Amino acid sequence: MRLATVPHDGTTSAALIEDHRFAPVRSLPGREDAADVAALIAQPLDPAETELLRGRLRSLTGTRLLPPILRPPKNVLCVGKNYVEHVREGAHAEGVKFEIPDEPIWFTKAHTALAGHEGTIPWDPEFTEQLDYEGELAVVVGKSGRHIRRERALDHVFGYTILNDVTARDRQQRHKQWFVGKSADGYAPLGPWVVTADAIPDPQNLTIETTVDGEIRQSDTTANMIFDVATLITAISTGLTLEPGDVIGTGTPPGVAWGSGRFLRPGSTVAVAVEGIGRLVSEVGTVTSPS
Amino acid sequence: MRLATVPHDGTTSAALIEDHRFAPVRSLPGREDAADVAALIAQPLDPAETELLRGRLRSLTGTRLLPPILRPPKNVLCVGKNYVEHVREGAHAEGVKFEIPDEPIWFTKAHTALAGHEGTIPWDPEFTEQLDYEGELAVVVGKSGRHIRRERALDHVFGYTILNDVTARDRQQRHKQWFVGKSADGYAPLGPWVVTADAIPDPQNLTIETTVDGEIRQSDTTANMIFDVATLITAISTGLTLEPGDVIGTGTPPGVAWGSGRFLRPGSTVAVAVEGIGRLVSEVGTVTSPS
Repeated sequence: MRLATVPHDGTTSAALIEDHRFAPVRSLPGREDAADVAALIAQPLDPAETELLRGRLRSLTGTRLLPPILRPPKNVLCVGKNYVEHVREGAHAEGVKFEIPDEPIWFTKAHTALAGHEGTIPWDPEFTEQLDYEGELAVVVGKSGRHIRRERALDHVFGYTILNDVTARDRQQRHKQWFVGKSADGYAPLGPWVVTADAIPDPQNLTIETTVDGEIRQSDTTANMIFDVATLITAISTGLTLEPGDVIGTGTPPGVAWGSGRFLRPGSTVAVAVEGIGRLVSEVGTVTSPS
Repeated sequence: MRLATVPHDGTTSAALIEDHRFAPVRSLPGREDAADVAALIAQPLDPAETELLRGRLRSLTGTRLLPPILRPPKNVLCVGKNYVEHVREGAHAEGVKFEIPDEPIWFTKAHTALAGHEGTIPWDPEFTEQLDYEGELAVVVGKSGRHIRRERALDHVFGYTILNDVTARDRQQRHKQWFVGKSADGYAPLGPWVVTADAIPDPQNLTIETTVDGEIRQSDTTANMIFDVATLITAISTGLTLEPGDVIGTGTPPGVAWGSGRFLRPGSTVAVAVEGIGRLVSEVGTVTSPS
């Protein structure tokens, strides 16, 4: 099942998605509170509701898709250096020794960085001259847990979506810790929708491809993750309680601009496609005025 | 004015604090939604309400103080290496070159790490064998903003409180990025209350002292910050929008256990005192069962 968040009656609604058509969940009786996909984690659509929505599907054309989870309980949980060849290109760009991490390297992105499908990545030369993309499979947590055992980890997954872990490489380097270079407004395009876990039985066998202006920059498979989704869930939940609606970015394959020197520019279109999920498109905008 | 969050009628309430006495804001007409101090940022207490509350003050004895902000919009925003002598002890402990940072080093702590005054820091030898404290002045943001200019930065402060940036040093080192070693459940004691900004005209002239079992371990003044509060607000808001209720940890002075090797143990009592605010006490507990 594909689930999105859409504008609805001046506010927002979770929506069922089928073949480029959608139906808002808030139109169902008793579902007036279903403001985003997170509301469907606590209370999933039952078969009767799904049937009702299928009768109300209408074209997505002209409807803006919002980040499927509008406000994850925590900052988006992200892991760096999770594909060997991306570790290699990063070490080369940074001029440091190539070393495969022994443990996942975690950082976060604030909810203020979230943007939906066909949203804008801000272009702000005062903030960065090295604007980069990172196409990633993202996990949406469905069930709370701490000390989650690896063999039960995938039971805690509600579904999967796509994250573009947009990064200001110069800021990332200057500030040492990665948060500030990865958490500017608009630096976390997420979507276009969440595909529920039942539709993706093996998250470690999905092709992932990122294009910039139609040119393939990243092309890999999630089979090449150093730490797989189950291992990541176990690792992050060792000390911290995962909550329904938490979003986990699983790291990016090789091919980022940091390696090639070909950074994003105003007007660039970035698309991240993950097999079985869809394609998340963002356009690089122009500098926004100080507020 | 001192403002806390307290348990109230099976839920929680913001509360006025005066001399070890408190009055719940939810007891006021029209204030039934004031679940925590964050509710008083959007709608501050007016003089009539304050007067009413003063007539209802009762002893704090036996009342548990909760984290004043129960759920900041973002993870707690923290800065590392913000006192020169703490940078020095860290460099020595890590065996790396002593270097004053050119830019603030930002990381975050999840809201699931928050704990109130007299709360418990979990003792879990499976998670860490190097449990450390970091006493810090914390800022509560009152007004939204991005690209905040330094000369206007303090206008965005609602008030000040105390953060203990509890850290698992071994995890912090092994995972490279600091999030995972600083974000376990219970690793962000916050409180005991928020002192509104009008009562602290100069946040750069406050003594800060951390004791473990009564022994002074950290004793410094906020005058020794490398990046002062105004600079931190300007820096973090360069790319990211600060929101009311966001909490900023401003870094810790020298004297952490990482420097001395004297880490926290089960039963240790840690107290962080900041001049003009109060004293935040936490006890190190015992290992909690997997959930």
